[in-house]
Amino acid sequence: MSSQNQKISILGAGPVGALLSISLAKKGYSVTLFERRDDMRKAGAIGGRSINMALSRRGLKALDAVGLKEKVQECCIPMPGRMIHDLEGNLNFQPYGKEGQYINSISRSGLNMLLMDEAEAHGVEIRFEHKCVNVDFDTTTAHFANGTSVSSDFLFGADGAFSALRTAMQKTDRFNYSQDYISAGYKELTMPPTANGDFALDPNALHIWPRGEYMLIALPNLDKSFTCTLFFPFEGKLSFEALKTEEDVQQFFESKFNDATPFLPDLTTDFFKNPTSSMVTVRCNPWVKENTALFGDAAHALVPFYGQGMNAGFEDCFVFNELLEKHGAINDALFTEYEALRIPDANAIADLALYNFIEMRDKVADPKFVLQKKIEKRLNELFPDKWVPLYTMVTFSDFRYSEAQVLGKNQQAIMNQVLAQPNIEAFWEELYFEEIVRKLG
Amino acid sequence: MSSQNQKISILGAGPVGALLSISLAKKGYSVTLFERRDDMRKAGAIGGRSINMALSRRGLKALDAVGLKEKVQECCIPMPGRMIHDLEGNLNFQPYGKEGQYINSISRSGLNMLLMDEAEAHGVEIRFEHKCVNVDFDTTTAHFANGTSVSSDFLFGADGAFSALRTAMQKTDRFNYSQDYISAGYKELTMPPTANGDFALDPNALHIWPRGEYMLIALPNLDKSFTCTLFFPFEGKLSFEALKTEEDVQQFFESKFNDATPFLPDLTTDFFKNPTSSMVTVRCNPWVKENTALFGDAAHALVPFYGQGMNAGFEDCFVFNELLEKHGAINDALFTEYEALRIPDANAIADLALYNFIEMRDKVADPKFVLQKKIEKRLNELFPDKWVPLYTMVTFSDFRYSEAQVLGKNQQAIMNQVLAQPNIEAFWEELYFEEIVRKLG
Repeated sequence: MSSQNQKISILGAGPVGALLSISLAKKGYSVTLFERRDDMRKAGAIGGRSINMALSRRGLKALDAVGLKEKVQECCIPMPGRMIHDLEGNLNFQPYGKEGQYINSISRSGLNMLLMDEAEAHGVEIRFEHKCVNVDFDTTTAHFANGTSVSSDFLFGADGAFSALRTAMQKTDRFNYSQDYISAGYKELTMPPTANGDFALDPNALHIWPRGEYMLIALPNLDKSFTCTLFFPFEGKLSFEALKTEEDVQQFFESKFNDATPFLPDLTTDFFKNPTSSMVTVRCNPWVKENTALFGDAAHALVPFYGQGMNAGFEDCFVFNELLEKHGAINDALFTEYEALRIPDANAIADLALYNFIEMRDKVADPKFVLQKKIEKRLNELFPDKWVPLYTMVTFSDFRYSEAQVLGKNQQAIMNQVLAQPNIEAFWEELYFEEIVRKLG
Repeated sequence: MSSQNQKISILGAGPVGALLSISLAKKGYSVTLFERRDDMRKAGAIGGRSINMALSRRGLKALDAVGLKEKVQECCIPMPGRMIHDLEGNLNFQPYGKEGQYINSISRSGLNMLLMDEAEAHGVEIRFEHKCVNVDFDTTTAHFANGTSVSSDFLFGADGAFSALRTAMQKTDRFNYSQDYISAGYKELTMPPTANGDFALDPNALHIWPRGEYMLIALPNLDKSFTCTLFFPFEGKLSFEALKTEEDVQQFFESKFNDATPFLPDLTTDFFKNPTSSMVTVRCNPWVKENTALFGDAAHALVPFYGQGMNAGFEDCFVFNELLEKHGAINDALFTEYEALRIPDANAIADLALYNFIEMRDKVADPKFVLQKKIEKRLNELFPDKWVPLYTMVTFSDFRYSEAQVLGKNQQAIMNQVLAQPNIEAFWEELYFEEIVRKLG
């Protein structure tokens, strides 16, 4: 059966669902997107989740495959590194990679609206206010809360961390599933442009105020505001629970994020008005059941600390698209390969994202960490094919996440030995770098 | 508020729900059990899960606390050890513990009916054909598929591995949950009494045919039949999937379980008539939400290989009962302590049960394993307070599961050293046992 005669329904018109719909429409499938929310492009519609994202190579690669890379990059603000703010307000810039390598701050809703427009331009129909409540796998039928039902040749779930398709899969036998919340939550706060209409901070960086058990970060927006996010324990001595009054909040911010606080005029109002959100890691196996399959957060919700949630979801679409070219049709062989490739990668980036919370909130402030970055940068300059720092593999390369995780572990073990040498700070430039690389085997 | 004025609803009238209802009714609460199935005590009712269970100390302790130990023991067949059947039909008896220590084969439905009768005798009302479909935590209300709803002071879920209460909890924020299936399934087969009305095998043992990747086991029933269970991979070269015809099954059994096959006259019919069931480990955290709490499989479904599923569920009731005596009322302090005590213990026995599949299907046939059992038996005889074999701690003691797991790991590490000595088989009786025990620290 040729693709032209096949109907595909996709649950979720978020960035991943919309991108998937475009790539399938370009292949000739008849694609319909079902979105539980109202059309965010209409004035007054209530948006979904967090405000901006870090788009990097994997996401851009997937956008490029459908011809949208340049268009999207016009909406991006490059962030070539982290700007670390210490307690005294001193700044320390840590590049993410080499000259010319950067991650991109982009508005989630802006990107989503662009992708919806493109989907419609490719003939995709988007049905809003369609909340899926159940799925019949025998007939590939999605049932919606408004009483309608739709049967298709294939049904894909790109409907996020609380996916209705995955929930239906979970009720079937032998479906492995886990959801794990971390003990910290997050709250978004807006840092508006200054009185003269400028960015309050350097816009070409991801700002971090690392404070051990918690942190504040800030990403730039095109309107010259920043979106700040406080990652903070839900409970405990220093926690969301413990900050009860506007005075508590003001005092906490002034003592811990002193250089940011003057730029947060609505801090205390925003703090109590904006929700405190939780963060979950979702893993499951299989991702395919009969003629249905999962993509993005529906298959692998990540905590946000590697900036890879959307990138990983876009890469799912990219890999699926490549497999579709290889197999020529959506069939069991394609599904089997899709799962075999993506499940280990999703588990790897889920682990890496959890670990990166500790790196961001704590290690970036450690001189040993800074030194490690310097040594790894030198190793990469000297042996660009042999030593690629983990962050670079994840963010700026096509290495599979699962490969990056294994290589990263080996490299970290070697670096631990290197850094354990007494007085390493003084003589690191004289290290015998070739021998270090040789330890990789 | 005194217990006499408090209403408690329990979802699930299985052994755990029924036992919990008895202990709460004895404390003066007004208790109602809601069971989704029909009354199994009525002729023709379709029963629930597997046919017989291994009741051991933890379960008996909980039954004793409500005065039912003796009554239940009358329905038990003692199994003081494992009877290992090798490929040639040779038998090897391995005692589970010391003289006088045994586990008990008991009919699940027989025990369940006894507990339902006792519950009703204590004033508990049982409403059958009440399948819970949703729970409102703010009002402690259970909604049922038949359209009725019931509000109570407390709502407890003892409704099994696919608990409706837990499913409702899973929809709330920050609920950690996992379900993991193992790659093997199981099928139950009946070994009837012989032509002269006798047991086909020695009734005072749990019979095992360990075959590496799979195994057959048999537990005795009061009617002189045995319930045999084949634990076998779902897929692969030797698997349920691979046995396609009656000839395949007959041949497989004759070549692998040759001494059992003559006693299985209906083997091939039963094999294709009886279902192939999956096995899941469920873990979650929290177990308490508002005025609701989970018990038994609803909180911690285990794979069956340690024979502890029902024992662990009964121990939940025992611990809850003790905490109720300590706190004097069901309140937040009690709930907090219940979770703090039982979640680590449930996670420990879940791990131990997974591990024990390997022990049962493979290690019991290994001479090193048999030797280890002998050495540990000697250690326990010499130093009964210091060295308690893991199986004994889990099955015949009140050690917390989590303590048993930690102690068991230490002991195993020491035993690995002992067993690694060349020619240990020859001189083990001359080991310096006191020094071995001293390594425990």
